[in-house]
Amino acid sequence: MNAYCLATYRCYDEKADFTKKANGIAVGLTVGSWTELPEAQKAQMEKHLGKVISVIVHEPVNGESSADRYADISIAYPDVNFSRDIPALLVTIFGKLSMDGRIKLTDLSFSSDFLSSFPGPKFGIQGIRNLLGVHDRPLLMSIFKSVVGYELPALREQFYLQAAGGVDLIKDDEILFENPLTPLEKRIEVCMEAAAKASQETGQKLLYAVNITGPTSKLAEQAKKAIRAGANAILFNVLAYGFDVLHELSSDPEINVPIMAHPAMAGAFYPSPHYGITASVLLGKLMRLAGADLVLFPSPYGSVVMPLEENLAIKHMLLTTDLNKDYLYASDGEKSQLAPSFPVPSAGIHPGLVPHILRDFGEEVVVNAGGGIHGHPLGTIAGGQAFRQAIEASQRQIPLREYASTHKELQIAIETWGVKD
Amino acid sequence: MNAYCLATYRCYDEKADFTKKANGIAVGLTVGSWTELPEAQKAQMEKHLGKVISVIVHEPVNGESSADRYADISIAYPDVNFSRDIPALLVTIFGKLSMDGRIKLTDLSFSSDFLSSFPGPKFGIQGIRNLLGVHDRPLLMSIFKSVVGYELPALREQFYLQAAGGVDLIKDDEILFENPLTPLEKRIEVCMEAAAKASQETGQKLLYAVNITGPTSKLAEQAKKAIRAGANAILFNVLAYGFDVLHELSSDPEINVPIMAHPAMAGAFYPSPHYGITASVLLGKLMRLAGADLVLFPSPYGSVVMPLEENLAIKHMLLTTDLNKDYLYASDGEKSQLAPSFPVPSAGIHPGLVPHILRDFGEEVVVNAGGGIHGHPLGTIAGGQAFRQAIEASQRQIPLREYASTHKELQIAIETWGVKD
Repeated sequence: MNAYCLATYRCYDEKADFTKKANGIAVGLTVGSWTELPEAQKAQMEKHLGKVISVIVHEPVNGESSADRYADISIAYPDVNFSRDIPALLVTIFGKLSMDGRIKLTDLSFSSDFLSSFPGPKFGIQGIRNLLGVHDRPLLMSIFKSVVGYELPALREQFYLQAAGGVDLIKDDEILFENPLTPLEKRIEVCMEAAAKASQETGQKLLYAVNITGPTSKLAEQAKKAIRAGANAILFNVLAYGFDVLHELSSDPEINVPIMAHPAMAGAFYPSPHYGITASVLLGKLMRLAGADLVLFPSPYGSVVMPLEENLAIKHMLLTTDLNKDYLYASDGEKSQLAPSFPVPSAGIHPGLVPHILRDFGEEVVVNAGGGIHGHPLGTIAGGQAFRQAIEASQRQIPLREYASTHKELQIAIETWGVKD
Repeated sequence: MNAYCLATYRCYDEKADFTKKANGIAVGLTVGSWTELPEAQKAQMEKHLGKVISVIVHEPVNGESSADRYADISIAYPDVNFSRDIPALLVTIFGKLSMDGRIKLTDLSFSSDFLSSFPGPKFGIQGIRNLLGVHDRPLLMSIFKSVVGYELPALREQFYLQAAGGVDLIKDDEILFENPLTPLEKRIEVCMEAAAKASQETGQKLLYAVNITGPTSKLAEQAKKAIRAGANAILFNVLAYGFDVLHELSSDPEINVPIMAHPAMAGAFYPSPHYGITASVLLGKLMRLAGADLVLFPSPYGSVVMPLEENLAIKHMLLTTDLNKDYLYASDGEKSQLAPSFPVPSAGIHPGLVPHILRDFGEEVVVNAGGGIHGHPLGTIAGGQAFRQAIEASQRQIPLREYASTHKELQIAIETWGVKD
């Protein structure tokens, strides 16, 4: 029996015969030519031929112009045509086709055989909660304020203040590369010291996601060096290196810490309605497939904005337990075990947004803040505390303003940034 | 003295203060904050601070709406902030920023220090001409017709027919991955046999670019295996793996054959006016910087179309010898030695277009055809011959129709596809 992976595209064209176009894709990106083949050869080639699954045409309606005419086209590609890796799949389904007019890759589902080559997140949500010993609330993460050009003592101080405020995770800045002021191993040493100090005071554990950078062939070695130096998580700029590199890092048994995927460069792919790859595939399905334990993406709340519905689509792809429906195409019923990845909506987050974040994402979310922690008028520690208070209030369904009346840090945060209604 | 790399963006916004936005980028993507720093610290941080180089605002003119308001913003980023690799540079200049509204990366120039970490193409145009012994005309390349699902004898036959027609290069289909029907080493064996046979007849040499695929960490090994098996060039889907992988492959002394960069997935980046990375940076500057000896991109002539001006911008970046102007920012005068890469405009090419290709690209070009060779009514050999005749006629400035009167293969090609006026 043949197995297939399914790609769906939104394809804009003022007057194309979309059915013909879909057939052209199904043949052109697989066997190359079909109708002119002798019947005997067709029998042999059939298993390599792509299939048009559906063509749903949207004709322009009131107020739309002919440029708004599009079709959602789904094509099934036989697994037998490509190797079990993300580059081969992407080159097959959206290599040449990405350059063929106004076309965007909007969904992707895998055969159970293809999916079985991907162990997925090594930790996932449950694994990260186990590491932290936190099972009953959303997690809180913070981002360094400024790191480029700063030296180790400044980094240690910043780290300590964040940790002492009660955050669960701290990530490197994604633009912090190997550098003489704060080299990888020294940075880990001083930050993990600061973490230990804060931990004695807060009684909490903490994950520090260290940015793994440099030449592609040395990344695994860098990650292991970081782990030997004490790092208990890594940050990775996936799209600057490719999904396959993430897959290789996450599959490496010696890289036994959670991997946090940063969305740097994602804006080159997802925002156009006409080109690229939709956010739920790029930052949702593919990140989880490739093994990201946590995935950052632009929140719908701040200045760097992604629409809420796209956020929710990413969340769904990171969390869904119904892999048969969302990840698998024509599943044979075998249940896959891809662990869910933590969604981390980022940018523009302050305590007054926490009830919204929990309403939109539920409790399986990492509340992630930078300026909303460091910019607290009482300082970074109070900034973290205000967030923890906001999380607690939200979980107990107490209005933030009410809870703030007995919690000074939250009170001042609200005076500073307000509460989103 | 500080060295900087320069990034230019086209940034659309209906009412933004673009100067303020530019300052926000220059500070935000480097030191994080500036105005609030104590003066003593500013002195120390100055060398890490990005600089706004220019802000050129385009206000909407006749017929344009406020949505068409944009600015071209150039920012200089201190080298000291990032390591000497393409992922670090891209994450710095277009990591978070790519997600910040309607913004496209339109140009990129490097410091001579940054550039000095990139040897560039190992062969380049001259090296490829030397390998082929062809110095006096544009090269001719052909693409397999259908390969997925075919077995070795069919591949050998196709290869032989292409080679016998007088082409200089043959490339694998980019969607041909490691597979049981035509595995890498066997494929190379039969194709190089076919090449040798054709070579005895034509007296020509030939390069066969074998597709290197699979897990990222095994690519160099795959390439070396291919070379040991007799491959004399490799094809690589750069954008599915990342520029740094190309850089590592091209820098590897044991990978001593030309590398052909395929643009698969490039359409996810360049076509939108508002998002992504412009084609001349993506397929021009970065491909050459990372060491591609030949670069394929969609021609302006066929069905998969890129505008002529974008084609010419790519060509310029691949060929320019004035690196100080086009590649270097604030050069100290040191001359870089990046070899030029062969431009390979692809898709929709038939012999009747050859005079246009030579007019647009000059003689340092690879004429690349698939259907225009295999679809010749007299067969694939005649298809190659018709192209060689068209190239000869164009070089001698003889109108194609006139030359065709004494060259049957060209005559029939023209009858089939016409001549572009």
